Amino acid sequence: MELQDVLNRIQAELADAGGVGAVADYIPELATVAPDSFGMAVVTVGGGVSRFGDAERLFSIQSISKVFALAMALQSEGDALWQRVGREPSGHAFNSLVQLENEAGIPRNPFINAGALVVTDVLCSRFAVPENAVVDFLRSITGRDDLLYNRRVARSERETGHRNAALAHFMKSFGNLMNPVDQVLDAYCRQCAIEMSCVDLARAAAVLAGRGVSPATGARLLGSEVVRQLNAVMQTCGTYDGAGDFAVRVGLPAKSGVGGGILAVVPGQCGLCVWSPRVDASGNSVLGVRALERFVALSGHSVF
Amino acid sequence: MELQDVLNRIQAELADAGGVGAVADYIPELATVAPDSFGMAVVTVGGGVSRFGDAERLFSIQSISKVFALAMALQSEGDALWQRVGREPSGHAFNSLVQLENEAGIPRNPFINAGALVVTDVLCSRFAVPENAVVDFLRSITGRDDLLYNRRVARSERETGHRNAALAHFMKSFGNLMNPVDQVLDAYCRQCAIEMSCVDLARAAAVLAGRGVSPATGARLLGSEVVRQLNAVMQTCGTYDGAGDFAVRVGLPAKSGVGGGILAVVPGQCGLCVWSPRVDASGNSVLGVRALERFVALSGHSVF
Amino acid sequence: MELQDVLNRIQAELADAGGVGAVADYIPELATVAPDSFGMAVVTVGGGVSRFGDAERLFSIQSISKVFALAMALQSEGDALWQRVGREPSGHAFNSLVQLENEAGIPRNPFINAGALVVTDVLCSRFAVPENAVVDFLRSITGRDDLLYNRRVARSERETGHRNAALAHFMKSFGNLMNPVDQVLDAYCRQCAIEMSCVDLARAAAVLAGRGVSPATGARLLGSEVVRQLNAVMQTCGTYDGAGDFAVRVGLPAKSGVGGGILAVVPGQCGLCVWSPRVDASGNSVLGVRALERFVALSGHSVF
Amino acid sequence: MELQDVLNRIQAELADAGGVGAVADYIPELATVAPDSFGMAVVTVGGGVSRFGDAERLFSIQSISKVFALAMALQSEGDALWQRVGREPSGHAFNSLVQLENEAGIPRNPFINAGALVVTDVLCSRFAVPENAVVDFLRSITGRDDLLYNRRVARSERETGHRNAALAHFMKSFGNLMNPVDQVLDAYCRQCAIEMSCVDLARAAAVLAGRGVSPATGARLLGSEVVRQLNAVMQTCGTYDGAGDFAVRVGLPAKSGVGGGILAVVPGQCGLCVWSPRVDASGNSVLGVRALERFVALSGHSVF
Repeated sequence: MELQDVLNRIQAELADAGGVGAVADYIPELATVAPDSFGMAVVTVGGGVSRFGDAERLFSIQSISKVFALAMALQSEGDALWQRVGREPSGHAFNSLVQLENEAGIPRNPFINAGALVVTDVLCSRFAVPENAVVDFLRSITGRDDLLYNRRVARSERETGHRNAALAHFMKSFGNLMNPVDQVLDAYCRQCAIEMSCVDLARAAAVLAGRGVSPATGARLLGSEVVRQLNAVMQTCGTYDGAGDFAVRVGLPAKSGVGGGILAVVPGQCGLCVWSPRVDASGNSVLGVRALERFVALSGHSVF
Repeated sequence: MELQDVLNRIQAELADAGGVGAVADYIPELATVAPDSFGMAVVTVGGGVSRFGDAERLFSIQSISKVFALAMALQSEGDALWQRVGREPSGHAFNSLVQLENEAGIPRNPFINAGALVVTDVLCSRFAVPENAVVDFLRSITGRDDLLYNRRVARSERETGHRNAALAHFMKSFGNLMNPVDQVLDAYCRQCAIEMSCVDLARAAAVLAGRGVSPATGARLLGSEVVRQLNAVMQTCGTYDGAGDFAVRVGLPAKSGVGGGILAVVPGQCGLCVWSPRVDASGNSVLGVRALERFVALSGHSVF
Repeated sequence: MELQDVLNRIQAELADAGGVGAVADYIPELATVAPDSFGMAVVTVGGGVSRFGDAERLFSIQSISKVFALAMALQSEGDALWQRVGREPSGHAFNSLVQLENEAGIPRNPFINAGALVVTDVLCSRFAVPENAVVDFLRSITGRDDLLYNRRVARSERETGHRNAALAHFMKSFGNLMNPVDQVLDAYCRQCAIEMSCVDLARAAAVLAGRGVSPATGARLLGSEVVRQLNAVMQTCGTYDGAGDFAVRVGLPAKSGVGGGILAVVPGQCGLCVWSPRVDASGNSVLGVRALERFVALSGHSVF
Repeated sequence: MELQDVLNRIQAELADAGGVGAVADYIPELATVAPDSFGMAVVTVGGGVSRFGDAERLFSIQSISKVFALAMALQSEGDALWQRVGREPSGHAFNSLVQLENEAGIPRNPFINAGALVVTDVLCSRFAVPENAVVDFLRSITGRDDLLYNRRVARSERETGHRNAALAHFMKSFGNLMNPVDQVLDAYCRQCAIEMSCVDLARAAAVLAGRGVSPATGARLLGSEVVRQLNAVMQTCGTYDGAGDFAVRVGLPAKSGVGGGILAVVPGQCGLCVWSPRVDASGNSVLGVRALERFVALSGHSVF
């Protein structure tokens, strides 16, 4: 089946499957999204684009930004980064403090919030305005010069995000943040508030599918070893405390965000992104996981 | 044996026992104290005062302030306070976040840091400048009009106290702090930085020994039910994660501070305070615990 | 008020207060008790006995047996016992395994199940039939030669007590049980199944009130230092994870059992026992705690 | 490069790399192995076999048996199995009890000991002698009729395995074991004591690479959905608390055992097994992980 046919079939199959799950409202500004939005895009390593539904609508990428921040930190620090953040699944909720206390302030992996704050701290040491550096990187990787972060969402998360503040102060108390807590939190909330579409994110994912080479230009944007590590960490830690279930159902390296987006990679083949704002208890888009499950089944693309 | 004789004997017995333990240095400003200071005072419910050594020297009362903040919060809130903070021993270090995560942001008791922050939050809701209210209360209870908090110590703790900031933000995320985090932390650090002598604190303890009545004036300063609760919470939770060991060795309601002070109460008889800055791994003054152990053995005053 | 008058008053006040809480049924055989039984006894250090209600009825002492097993282990081992079991409140449920894993198999105190199993293991090393040794000790302390353990209750607990088996194997894996797991569990379940009345247990408690001297014969049955330690550990750890609340409400050293009994001590004055089978979520008798609360208020006997 | 050339190169590169790590000795009988044994085998889905070193020597497969027990349980129970055991990485050591207590006796995944005990319990309900059923299944999958479990190793583990006994009793207390604890432990220890060679295990792994079809006979031995689930669970949970690190370094579905074996799968291509008894702190063969890392690099076979 052609990829566009696969996507059309998924759209048809799931046309009546919406309504399950709830829009994340712990960031008040996020709760204003249309809850039944649904879109998906696939970009092959050759540059071909398929899509359906709201695939061009901008949404808040939230935790998907952690993939790109990690890519930048790995490019600049190399394996030294793994001294400050682990790469093991956590077995706890994405915003848990328990593990930090038991493991001396070293977060389990870069995709739980604590680990992402360490990654942002690394970027704070490298860049004058780290959130702009992430935006610039995403502009270069997608070819879209108008990407921005949403200031209202960033502010909303910054003002209500006491759990992230607790994580940051806690790691600071262990000596695992180098920059002032407020600066790290500002940069982190802005990075999470970047807005992109499924097509944008599928283009970015296609770079990971292509081991770091842009499908559009053929230029090398990331080292192949960095990409291999990103894919591996997405596979084991990319979907919060539901990574094992996701591996069984979908089996692709992926990263979800509470905004309802899921980025996924078929190594060597294509990048994907699906978006639907209703999320399950783990924070993963309900319709998004189902769409990816069907994609793997219909296309035969699986790592297993 | 007369109380002064008991104290003289303790001073003589422990003359060569110093040098064990280390001055707390996690608050940089606290590390400047003379490490081998040693003093003790007893004030009876009749008003008699006995003392030795550095009993008149001011020191940083730190966590001992939690007794008086709790007294004020109990006076104003009554048993409703126990909805927001428990009164069970914690089984964890005084600054642990683990328990909060497992019990939905309700601290186990008012003498671990998380619980003390809730108590301070209560005072923030009652008083315009809560740290001044605590100072005023201590002035009235001791009869000393010149009590103050040390601004350098307060600032030092405020700037380096990321663990307390983590606790406060964490409870805020559970909705168990009503006032802004920064305001609560300011008030808390100032309250901890109050400076008093052993004689001052023994006078305050004598009010608890006298079920709320001042030994100096005969005036009722605290309700007898409040005092009973304070003594009970000190008995089970007053010496950090060493309360069980302390109960076996000393057996008196007591509250220690990392500044090296320990306040203790012999209900119906007298209030005590001992001070020596070297503390053990639990944060309790090494010489202070030994002095109280000898006091109970020599005076026959014990609750058991 | 005379003690018998105090007891009469408590009986009258609480006549209509029953019906709250539930009879423990995790040991099937225990669930056959009459749920609304209610009795209380006080024995002074001078030997005077007061009582009401079902004070002469035998009931399953369950965890109250831990006090006497600890007394025997302390008599034989002295402070060396504290190398194998702590004496700090646990902050966890009485049958939790979490703490053991975090603290290398050393139970927090001798009154949680794990700690009591270590105490029983000590007795297994000292006595050929340790459960009989406990029974003999209780016969000597109460003057009743017909005390026995209930074989059906012991067997019922042994067969269904997989949590205790888990605790025992877990400590064995840390090297903190010297005897075979099955032997320790047998002895432990039999010791818990001893049946006594309120009057019996109040007599035993009066020995603790009298610093180890029998009120009936004037003979020394326990060392005064052992008794001081027992009282202290009861104060901080005697009522499961409700010890802090109990200290505030009652303020006496005490030990409860899921059979609905609570033994309490007024040091220097008298021993008490109250029994009512309906227990709260922590495992403490609902009516029992209320009766003790009233006893302290009416008699003025409190350690605070 | 031909597969045999890849293996020769690995053998040459790692010839001087031994000596790191220690032979597992918590099962006394296991400690008798020759510590510097080293062998590896690859079997393609077409049936081609490559090998080096001690690839034909029998060793104790230990936790690798969990893959085959899970395969059998999934074949018989289908997705209903996931009601009794999760499929998420645990974030704790393989023999931790903490997680069970926090999650009501449901183990996080079938590859930690608790989860494997549940799987064995399922087999106990299906088969009269479940350990023999596992042996029979392995005989059919490898074509070797002489496979056996080592009775001394099984007995040694049974007698010293108090931690596993604790896990089993703990789950029994939550109602998550249906069969008697002793029966489950017997079957589990025997299953772990099965002895196979690298070539045997690579043949079994080739069935997983071939989505359930035997490379030798072309017969379907496992459903393709069962195989997909096995590969997914191996990917996220197969190498104890080192699965994230393993995914980054190797990136293949794999299962390790403390006997020093690691089974790995290149979906669609080949099955592998490497054996070297010295293991790291997580329980994974030191030389085994390095050999697989080189295999992926040299052969280009990776899922990422």
